[in-house]
Amino acid sequence: MMSSASMTSREACVGRDLVDPLRSFRDRFVIPDGIIYLDGNSLGPMPRAAADVLNHTIEREWGQDLIRSWNSAGWFDMPVRLGDRLGALIGAAPGQTLVCDTTSINLYKAIHAAIGLRPDRNVVIAEDQSFPTDLYIIEGAMKSAGRPMKRRLIGTDGPSIEALIDRNVAVAVLSHVNYRTGELLDMAAITKQLHDVGALVVWDLCHSIGVVEIAFDDHAVDFAVGCTYKYLNGGPGSPAFISIAKAHQATAQHPLSGWWGHAAPFAFDRDFRPDAGIKRFLCGTQPIISTRGVEVALDAMEGVEVVALRRKSLALTELFMARVNALLPGLDIVTPREPLQRGSQVGISFDNGYAVVQAMIERGVIGDFRAPDLMRFGFAPLYVRFGDVWDAAEILAECINAEVWRDPRYNRKLEVT
Amino acid sequence: MMSSASMTSREACVGRDLVDPLRSFRDRFVIPDGIIYLDGNSLGPMPRAAADVLNHTIEREWGQDLIRSWNSAGWFDMPVRLGDRLGALIGAAPGQTLVCDTTSINLYKAIHAAIGLRPDRNVVIAEDQSFPTDLYIIEGAMKSAGRPMKRRLIGTDGPSIEALIDRNVAVAVLSHVNYRTGELLDMAAITKQLHDVGALVVWDLCHSIGVVEIAFDDHAVDFAVGCTYKYLNGGPGSPAFISIAKAHQATAQHPLSGWWGHAAPFAFDRDFRPDAGIKRFLCGTQPIISTRGVEVALDAMEGVEVVALRRKSLALTELFMARVNALLPGLDIVTPREPLQRGSQVGISFDNGYAVVQAMIERGVIGDFRAPDLMRFGFAPLYVRFGDVWDAAEILAECINAEVWRDPRYNRKLEVT
Repeated sequence: MMSSASMTSREACVGRDLVDPLRSFRDRFVIPDGIIYLDGNSLGPMPRAAADVLNHTIEREWGQDLIRSWNSAGWFDMPVRLGDRLGALIGAAPGQTLVCDTTSINLYKAIHAAIGLRPDRNVVIAEDQSFPTDLYIIEGAMKSAGRPMKRRLIGTDGPSIEALIDRNVAVAVLSHVNYRTGELLDMAAITKQLHDVGALVVWDLCHSIGVVEIAFDDHAVDFAVGCTYKYLNGGPGSPAFISIAKAHQATAQHPLSGWWGHAAPFAFDRDFRPDAGIKRFLCGTQPIISTRGVEVALDAMEGVEVVALRRKSLALTELFMARVNALLPGLDIVTPREPLQRGSQVGISFDNGYAVVQAMIERGVIGDFRAPDLMRFGFAPLYVRFGDVWDAAEILAECINAEVWRDPRYNRKLEVT
Repeated sequence: MMSSASMTSREACVGRDLVDPLRSFRDRFVIPDGIIYLDGNSLGPMPRAAADVLNHTIEREWGQDLIRSWNSAGWFDMPVRLGDRLGALIGAAPGQTLVCDTTSINLYKAIHAAIGLRPDRNVVIAEDQSFPTDLYIIEGAMKSAGRPMKRRLIGTDGPSIEALIDRNVAVAVLSHVNYRTGELLDMAAITKQLHDVGALVVWDLCHSIGVVEIAFDDHAVDFAVGCTYKYLNGGPGSPAFISIAKAHQATAQHPLSGWWGHAAPFAFDRDFRPDAGIKRFLCGTQPIISTRGVEVALDAMEGVEVVALRRKSLALTELFMARVNALLPGLDIVTPREPLQRGSQVGISFDNGYAVVQAMIERGVIGDFRAPDLMRFGFAPLYVRFGDVWDAAEILAECINAEVWRDPRYNRKLEVT
């Protein structure tokens, strides 16, 4: 573990950046001048290659080669091809991951399939603090499951997942890293607990892929979903991913049975016959230009090991929390200090957080705010520097000490995803 | 109706192009040199403005403005804003159309909602010749409807829809224009027949939007879906659309209840509470760059009336069929000659059609092929000229007369969407 203990001055931080083994990766991204970007947990910045590659897709593949590009430019294979590459970031062997649709749609497919794989069970476990779409999609999947299902909620103040697990549980839908607190769950232990009672798990990896080591195969995870526009930097709303363990593929079913999921999409059969493998989780034609953004993003990560990202990520968040504690003792950091329990973001609960985030943005530090009182700062190890962390903490302290919330300028409503 | 009767020479066709009221629209698209593009019914060509506008979205909105573009660049409102603009092309007043997801996903939402709106009925009518994904999604929607549903199939050789309609029918899912034959159904009459027995209708407009006049409101259509990358030219896999009549919005439900469909997506409530209106049919975060392609495409159609598109479209297809008949008497044109019964494409059934299409592509005329024996040619009135039609028919005749299928070069498998 890289410790931040030695980084007690801005100079020390900048010095650390000079010897950062990931230093060169920052050049692969466009970070606007004067910006410290701590919102990569919401929308990652643009890989430097994106403009040219996407322009090629637009002007050459679409504009000149037209319909022929479905084959010649590999459009048709993108969900599977990019899925295999993305799978490597979560420890999933090829043939188990697709890049397609949205996280919400993929969650629906996964939860529906999981419920179908456990026909004699009637409970879905969810988290009261999960990202809302997970809860909403669980509702939709339960209603359309074909039999009565019940939801059991893990609560912030209990019940714990241990208290909820029994042989009635078909599936648990869990966020690997919580979108608010940044808390990281123990995927290995929880997956095993669920499997021990015959239940399945769907892991939402939105806030962990690209910054936390994940061992999909080693932990025998059943299903995983996540988005590609946060720490993967695929571009605004770039298609999401879904991973389904090989063991379930032949039997897992979902009702979004579009032609791309057919065993022979161009045979134009009258009846649906799902592909034998991962492709049964495809549905319709994918947005190619936005999907190409995912490819550029994977290219920009080429050559980096997730273990190195994780090591730097922990050092960045540790430094930030240490600096905030030093500058603003008593501020309520909601993110666990224990490295094994946190992802790559730091959340601070603060009554006037909305105004503080606005004021920081005006000073070049972009974080975000989640109602009612949460300031969120994401630390993407590919491009955030230790020097940035030092400066961001200084500016946070400056804004709070100046009581910026008394300034009416900081009242505009900020809505981001 | 513009007749093609006067176009008995190439010169006459070129002369007609000179006085074509839609002539200037061709300049809004990039048509590669030497290409006659008759595959706009599969993937429309690139609007000339696309490269700059999409590059701005990529380099400026994503690259420089980052997360702020969700508001400042209008990303967040795109599904509704573009939906309203697209709705004008199908006669749907604002507030009834969204640009989002894929046609298959939107079909699922619409069919599921329609079945839910008719809880005491158990029949879904489909067409044996519909585009396969419609049949597959109907299967999925029926399986996840929560009660036993039956499918009744309209057959090419009967039964007709009239024979299948009764008070057990919850919904019929119909292609406005058939993807193979180009046959156009009578939306007004069929919608009324269904409504007369209390049934609902979902119209698949993939092959009619942008080339056929559609009166969503006037015909009191319940649901419509379609894609934006054919005659609308939104780019490869650009997001699809869904229209839901105002009358159904408060009660229509579907299980893809993601956070974008919530009444207050940023309140982050724990329970799903659907938006009161059209937005309840949104689900997750949309692919912004590909969605911007739809906006560019709508811009490229600004100033054109659908009635003018339809008039030219019919003249183009009439000319093509007349020329094919003259040059290749006896060739089996499967598209109706009656203008009221056809869309904007011409299908020709021919045993060696695959090789002929390949040979035509090599000669600069891009059409496509659908197994087992169908050559398809789409005539997009925005950029196809009468002179192009004349030339395409000549080249078709040349390829058939030369028996190009004897040439082993034309054996490569062509797979396009």
